[in-house]
Amino acid sequence: MLGIEELSMINVLTIRRMAQSRCLGGATMELVTGGAGFIGSHLVDTLVDEGKRVRVLDNFSSGREDFLSHHQDSGMVEIFKGDLLDIDAVKSAMEGIKTVHHLAANPDIRLGTEVTDTDLRQGTLATYNVLEAMRNSDVRRISFSSSSAIYGEASVMPTPETYGPVKPISLYGASKLASEALITAWCGTFGAKSWIHRFANIVGPRGTHGVIYDFIHKLKKDPSRLEVLGNGLQEKSYMSAEDCVRAMVHLVDETDDTINLYNLGTGDTCSVRRIAEIVVEESGLEGVSIEYTGGDRGWAGDVPKTSLDVEYLFSTGFEPTMQSEAAIRHTARALIDEIGL
Amino acid sequence: MLGIEELSMINVLTIRRMAQSRCLGGATMELVTGGAGFIGSHLVDTLVDEGKRVRVLDNFSSGREDFLSHHQDSGMVEIFKGDLLDIDAVKSAMEGIKTVHHLAANPDIRLGTEVTDTDLRQGTLATYNVLEAMRNSDVRRISFSSSSAIYGEASVMPTPETYGPVKPISLYGASKLASEALITAWCGTFGAKSWIHRFANIVGPRGTHGVIYDFIHKLKKDPSRLEVLGNGLQEKSYMSAEDCVRAMVHLVDETDDTINLYNLGTGDTCSVRRIAEIVVEESGLEGVSIEYTGGDRGWAGDVPKTSLDVEYLFSTGFEPTMQSEAAIRHTARALIDEIGL
Repeated sequence: MLGIEELSMINVLTIRRMAQSRCLGGATMELVTGGAGFIGSHLVDTLVDEGKRVRVLDNFSSGREDFLSHHQDSGMVEIFKGDLLDIDAVKSAMEGIKTVHHLAANPDIRLGTEVTDTDLRQGTLATYNVLEAMRNSDVRRISFSSSSAIYGEASVMPTPETYGPVKPISLYGASKLASEALITAWCGTFGAKSWIHRFANIVGPRGTHGVIYDFIHKLKKDPSRLEVLGNGLQEKSYMSAEDCVRAMVHLVDETDDTINLYNLGTGDTCSVRRIAEIVVEESGLEGVSIEYTGGDRGWAGDVPKTSLDVEYLFSTGFEPTMQSEAAIRHTARALIDEIGL
Repeated sequence: MLGIEELSMINVLTIRRMAQSRCLGGATMELVTGGAGFIGSHLVDTLVDEGKRVRVLDNFSSGREDFLSHHQDSGMVEIFKGDLLDIDAVKSAMEGIKTVHHLAANPDIRLGTEVTDTDLRQGTLATYNVLEAMRNSDVRRISFSSSSAIYGEASVMPTPETYGPVKPISLYGASKLASEALITAWCGTFGAKSWIHRFANIVGPRGTHGVIYDFIHKLKKDPSRLEVLGNGLQEKSYMSAEDCVRAMVHLVDETDDTINLYNLGTGDTCSVRRIAEIVVEESGLEGVSIEYTGGDRGWAGDVPKTSLDVEYLFSTGFEPTMQSEAAIRHTARALIDEIGL
């Protein structure tokens, strides 16, 4: 693997040749957009474990080189530094690809309340570019990281895939639903095949955002108190990143419809109050005062309660190794170790 | 009303002042994007009939000045010529507006099979600009023309609003679902209120595209034969444009949730084969040979069968004046008169 400082787009062709000469001949190659990011890098790990060659396309806006550094000497992973809004970069990355795992996106849901075109650009338009580059290169398989955020404030919980009408309340959720729609339209119009994964809240090592990450940073700044946005009663489904990417790969391997659309989660939920308690427990800090800002949601666009029905996923033979609380504790330990207290 | 040749964007401010000085003082004003188009111009008629002042924002790509010429002397309609992709034009059009009726879009579903960014730009990005301009001007009410195309090939028919997961198969349908998602996200994040109308196939006078329009043009070119794309068994819900805009206005007046989402249709369907027969009957031509190209759909992205469940609409007290066949015959007569044979 090359350092990212060497990976400007003008060097892509050179890099590809170098990578090909080092990589396994004959094996199919998988493209992971956002492959240097939190969930993307876990997916790269799982694909490599399965013996697959992987190309990562990432703009390193939130992705990090060290999330992939353990693949440095394997010859199984090549890295393209490029932005999905640069259609030429995306087209370059398609050569020799069998399946695109499209995970790149703005990872910060809250940002949509302040900057309204981030999710539109890094979500919807980026997905359009991926699909257009696939069409251009006759790549026909796409596995996409959608989100339970597309459901908005569902009136049915646990919420099954068949729930409708879906009314996302965040700009992030809107961009995920728009991306799903582009993907199904590509399947219907241009003969693509797709796997759409509607993620619960995914947590785990290498997390770069989200409630556990925020709590640890707050405790690092002030070990005496932990401010929680909202009343702490927000309650959501959590899944470990390791289970999440295992489920993604399992579905791509085991399901074969034109559009394979599944909720990915654990089947249970955990409250923000409980997360705060777990993070404080794992921090080893004594006498931390947990304080709530009040109100039923953390910010405008935050869904106070999500619970995903995952029977459809389980019916394919997949089982998560961790329920929500276990995933949160595992994540708290890992991030406290990564961030330091 | 001014001629469109006078309406370059640099003149917008002047026009607005002129319009205001001529229009009813005190009455609220409604903005209709795409108001010079097929359905938009019918909506303008209905709003004016209700005593409302209307501002039309249209780029006249498929809209036509003569669709609004009967309002020339009423002082109730002002026209802005501008494109929704020009955010400054959209912002200018928001001044003094209470409700935005957002109908502007690419009207030709089939185009998505050839040019993949038309619906993305004229649908999704245009809707984003409308919402962003609304936010900027504190305009909080949007009534949006969505489409049954968002359902794709639904496994439940008649298809209710609660059907899911929705998987549009056309790029047009994808852009409508993406627009719905942006609208619900704006409601959830910025406090907007919305009416989302999922249209059946809308037909009527001033139609500028679609199957009846195509059939008449084909007969005009060759009165001896009528080529029908597909096997003619495609079967869809049709609604007259007059009933459609009455339903839109009825819902905006009578429903008051944050998001009011309804299928708009008649409750029945009509086959393409029957449409061909009706158009030939109304043409007065003798001995026309109706020929089918075969296959179960007209083109990639065409949904062979749609049937909308409209019980939810009917529960609000709305009743259409024409069922599908009557709407088609009414349209055939009007378009034969407009186009000539």
